[in-house]
Amino acid sequence: MTKRKGCLFVISGPSGVGKGTLRERLFQCIPDLKYSVSVTSRKPRESEVEGKDYYFVDEEKFKKYIKENKFAEWALVYGEYKGTLLKTIQESTDRGKDLVLEIDVQGAMQIKKKFPDGVFIFIAPPSWEKLEYRLRNRKTEGEKELQKRLNEAHDEMKYVQHYNYLIINHHLEKALKELAAIIISERCKISQDELGKNNPVGDI
Amino acid sequence: MTKRKGCLFVISGPSGVGKGTLRERLFQCIPDLKYSVSVTSRKPRESEVEGKDYYFVDEEKFKKYIKENKFAEWALVYGEYKGTLLKTIQESTDRGKDLVLEIDVQGAMQIKKKFPDGVFIFIAPPSWEKLEYRLRNRKTEGEKELQKRLNEAHDEMKYVQHYNYLIINHHLEKALKELAAIIISERCKISQDELGKNNPVGDI
Repeated sequence: MTKRKGCLFVISGPSGVGKGTLRERLFQCIPDLKYSVSVTSRKPRESEVEGKDYYFVDEEKFKKYIKENKFAEWALVYGEYKGTLLKTIQESTDRGKDLVLEIDVQGAMQIKKKFPDGVFIFIAPPSWEKLEYRLRNRKTEGEKELQKRLNEAHDEMKYVQHYNYLIINHHLEKALKELAAIIISERCKISQDELGKNNPVGDI
Repeated sequence: MTKRKGCLFVISGPSGVGKGTLRERLFQCIPDLKYSVSVTSRKPRESEVEGKDYYFVDEEKFKKYIKENKFAEWALVYGEYKGTLLKTIQESTDRGKDLVLEIDVQGAMQIKKKFPDGVFIFIAPPSWEKLEYRLRNRKTEGEKELQKRLNEAHDEMKYVQHYNYLIINHHLEKALKELAAIIISERCKISQDELGKNNPVGDI
């Protein structure tokens, strides 16, 4: 019996929606998930570990990777490059590991073009007020930056139709339960492609 | 905002696989599910309640319903008619209720022809030995009948490819978790048909 291919789960949504917290909690619930480590051109912070938090490369090397089409997605944000290697996704799914990417909407749309069979999960805020409250509460943005993020969120919400699942993050525990349910159910899905070569009931 | 349509969940699999127990436990976990009540031509047992356990009709009426194409599926088993009314499914989903049908493989395949968008969940035994053990253990069949059921199970397993999900019922709690996850995740699914008229994030 050939090995089952791993799934690619893409968790995405506007800034401030709580996708980071959800992703962290998800890994506690389902520990055999693999986290997709990004490549960045920024310098590592003191606590950050190479290969765990990021793969740290210099700008020159990052640009070389872009030219060589090594990225599944990449972006230049505030002068720093950040991206996901195609290899990270391919190696993981080939080995039968389920990979989780936590990424903004633009990045998710790049991934979708290359991996249309991925499972795309949109995390939405319960209301604009709640999103604004959360962004203000984390105090990482000034007023101007905050308004920019809210405007971006408005635009990003339009992409929900390109996703497979929608989770409204009203209560963390409920949202977490839904997120875990999506992972568990996808693992029970019968893939028509794989049935021939990998009949899950072939050995009973 | 128009109301979300209800889902149709079809729980199916060979006799003795434990789908009845799973379905009962599922209703305890997710109480807002609706159970699809079948029509039968057999006489009610003492404890059975009309409209809760079954809709009891006489054979003549059952045959009239068949002629009038009122059934989503029906079968004649040991001289007794049993079936699911189209109306039961349509009314439920129109009202935005998620309906659960627990049914054998033949019945499920009839339902699939009429409701291809339903969610079809196949419950499989972990092994033939385990299935035989369970069938023997419930002591409702004689040896000949038991062999017949096992042969039927072999044939029924071939239909797994027509289903959306597969649950191997090895441990009840794990199987139940997977079944509940399928229901929860289906409720988070973004329906492309419904997005236009029923945008789930239209009001935020």
